[in-house]
Amino acid sequence: MTDPNISFASRTSLRETLQGRIDSKTKPIGALGRLEELALQIGMIQGTAHPRLTHPHIIVFAGDHGIAATGLVNPYPQAVTAQMVLNFIHGGAAINVLCRQHSIALKVVDAGVNFEFATDDSLIHEKIAYGTHNYLETDAMSREEAIRAMDAGRQIIKDLHREGCNCIGLGEMGIGNTSSAALIMSFVTGIPVEECCGRGTGVSDTQLETKIATLVKVYAKHAPAITASPDAITILQHVGGFEIAMMAGACLQAAALNMVILVDGFITTAALLLAVIEDEKVKDHCVYSHTSGEKGHQRMLGYLNARPLLDLGMRLGEGTGAAMAYPVLQSALAFLREMASFESAGVSKSE
Amino acid sequence: MTDPNISFASRTSLRETLQGRIDSKTKPIGALGRLEELALQIGMIQGTAHPRLTHPHIIVFAGDHGIAATGLVNPYPQAVTAQMVLNFIHGGAAINVLCRQHSIALKVVDAGVNFEFATDDSLIHEKIAYGTHNYLETDAMSREEAIRAMDAGRQIIKDLHREGCNCIGLGEMGIGNTSSAALIMSFVTGIPVEECCGRGTGVSDTQLETKIATLVKVYAKHAPAITASPDAITILQHVGGFEIAMMAGACLQAAALNMVILVDGFITTAALLLAVIEDEKVKDHCVYSHTSGEKGHQRMLGYLNARPLLDLGMRLGEGTGAAMAYPVLQSALAFLREMASFESAGVSKSE
Repeated sequence: MTDPNISFASRTSLRETLQGRIDSKTKPIGALGRLEELALQIGMIQGTAHPRLTHPHIIVFAGDHGIAATGLVNPYPQAVTAQMVLNFIHGGAAINVLCRQHSIALKVVDAGVNFEFATDDSLIHEKIAYGTHNYLETDAMSREEAIRAMDAGRQIIKDLHREGCNCIGLGEMGIGNTSSAALIMSFVTGIPVEECCGRGTGVSDTQLETKIATLVKVYAKHAPAITASPDAITILQHVGGFEIAMMAGACLQAAALNMVILVDGFITTAALLLAVIEDEKVKDHCVYSHTSGEKGHQRMLGYLNARPLLDLGMRLGEGTGAAMAYPVLQSALAFLREMASFESAGVSKSE
Repeated sequence: MTDPNISFASRTSLRETLQGRIDSKTKPIGALGRLEELALQIGMIQGTAHPRLTHPHIIVFAGDHGIAATGLVNPYPQAVTAQMVLNFIHGGAAINVLCRQHSIALKVVDAGVNFEFATDDSLIHEKIAYGTHNYLETDAMSREEAIRAMDAGRQIIKDLHREGCNCIGLGEMGIGNTSSAALIMSFVTGIPVEECCGRGTGVSDTQLETKIATLVKVYAKHAPAITASPDAITILQHVGGFEIAMMAGACLQAAALNMVILVDGFITTAALLLAVIEDEKVKDHCVYSHTSGEKGHQRMLGYLNARPLLDLGMRLGEGTGAAMAYPVLQSALAFLREMASFESAGVSKSE
C-alpha cells in the first residue's frame, strides 16, 4: 500500500515531523487523545505532514440475499432492500440526513438488488444478479460473479479517486446480510457461527433461535469447500453477498490508492475481513468509526485489534456510523492545520 | 425547571408523540441508539415534538487559582491561564478550531484571571479578583465573591438566551483548577480526595504524589466548615474557583430557561455537581459530552448516573469535549426532522 518511492527512513522522519507538529500545539502533550492519533495516522496514509480530506464520499452498496426469501433469518421482507434504495435516492434515509449534515457526497450502488430500478443518475448500476442464491441449498453465487463483484467495487473507487476523493466511508443495505456477515466472520476468525450471529434488524428470541439454527446448517454445508480454500473469492462464492463482495474490492482498491477508509459496522467489517485476507496492509488505511449494537461486531473489532471512535449504540448500517465519525476526522486534521503553536501564541510550556 | 404550565398529563403525551415520531422513521426500532434518546431528551427539554438548536454557544470561563503559584499541584506556570485566554481571543486554541468547524459561537469570560486584559469586545469582563487565594492558607474567596461569581454566570446565560441561544456548552481554563475540581468532587460525593485527584495537564508520578498530599491537607483544613454547611456557596468559598462558580450559576440559569447544557469534562462536571446540590432538576437539561481522560471524571459521571456520548481520551478542557459532541446533537435532531417515515417512503415494516 505504501508508496514504494518513500523509503523506510523517510517514513520514520515523516512520523517524527507529524508528531513534532502535534506536540507543538498549545495543549498538554496527548491532551487531544484520539484526535492526535488520527492526525498521525491520516498523515502517514497520505504521506504528508499536512493531511487533508478531499471530496469525501459514502458509498452504500445494496444487494439481496436468497436466504431472506425463506424468512428464516430476518423479520423484514426482502422487498425492503429495494424500498430503502428508493428511499436513499429520494433523500429520506438516515444516511441521507447525516451526509447532508457533514457535506459528504453519497453514492448508492445497486450491487444486486431483486428489483428493476429505472435508469437514474444518482444510482450506480452494477447489478450482478437479482439477489444471491439461497446458501442453504447451493452456493450464494458463482466464482465468476464473486470476482466480477469485487472488480466492480475496485472500479467504483478508482472512479471516485480520479475525481479527487481521498476518503471513503462504506455502507450497505441488504435484508438478510447480517447472516452472510456472521458466516464470513465465522469462517475468517474461527469463532463459532452461533457466537457471530446477532439480532440484525431486530429479530425476537424465537426468531434468533431459528436464525442461529439456520446458520449452523449453512456453515456445516459450506465448511468443507471453504476450509479447503479459505480465500476471499471462495468465501464470497459460498456464503457472500454482492454488496459485501463489492465492499471487499473497494477496501483493497482504496488502500492501494492511499485513501482513508471509514469502516462502518458489522457487515462492512465482515467485508474488510475478506480484504485483509488478501492484503494485511489494508488495515493501516482503516479508521473504525463505531462499535455497532449488533452482537459480534465487538469481537470482529477485537480480531482486527481495532479501536472504534464512537459507541452510540447504533445498528442501522447504511454507513451511518461512518458518517457520524467523519467530523471527528475533520477535527483531527483541523487542529493540526489551524491551532497555534506554543511559540506562535507565546504560551509557556510545562516546567 | 419544567414549565409549570405544562401539566404532567401533557408531558406524558409529549413524550409519546416524540417517541411515535422517532419510531415512524425508516429504520428498525432503536437502531439509531443514543441519537434516539437525545432526540427525545431535547424534545422534552424544549417542550416540543419539533426540537431545534438555535445560536449554540460555548462559553469558556477563565480564572486563576492561588494554589497554582505554589507550584505544588501544576506543572504549567500560572501565567499560562492569561496566555491561553489571549490564544482564545486570537483564535489559535483547540476550542477555536472546533467551534469554527461546527459553527458554534465562542464566548470567553475573564472570571478572575491574574492579568489585566485590554478592553476587548470578544472577551466578557467579569473579573471577580486576580485569582483566588491559596486555600492551603485561607479560604479561596469570600462568601460575597462566591455569590457574585454565581450571579455573573447566571447573567451571562440570560443575555445569551435573550439573543436566541437555546444550547450552551461550558468550558474552562485555569491553571490549577483540576485541584479545585477534585476537592469539590470529594466534598460533594464523599469519595476520598486522593481518589478524586488526577494528573491534570500532565503531572509526573512525583508531582502527583505532591499534588495528592497537598489536597489531603487542604481537605482537612476546610472539612469542618464545609461539613457544617455543605451548600454550593460554602464549598466555593473554601475551595472553589471563580470560573467554577460562574459555571455553576450558568448551569442553574440555563436549566431555568429550558436550555440544553452540554457538559464538558472534569472541571465543568464539578461545577455541575454544585448546581445539582442547589437544584436536582438541572440534571434533566444536561447532555454529557464525553468521558475525560482525567482520572476521577468517570466516577463523577457515575455519581450523576450520566452516560457520556464520546470517549476519545481527551483531557484538554476549554469546552473541547462539548464542541466534539455538538454535531451528535445536531444529528439527533436532523434525523427527527428530515428522515422519511415508513408511510411516506413506502417502506414495509417488520412482520
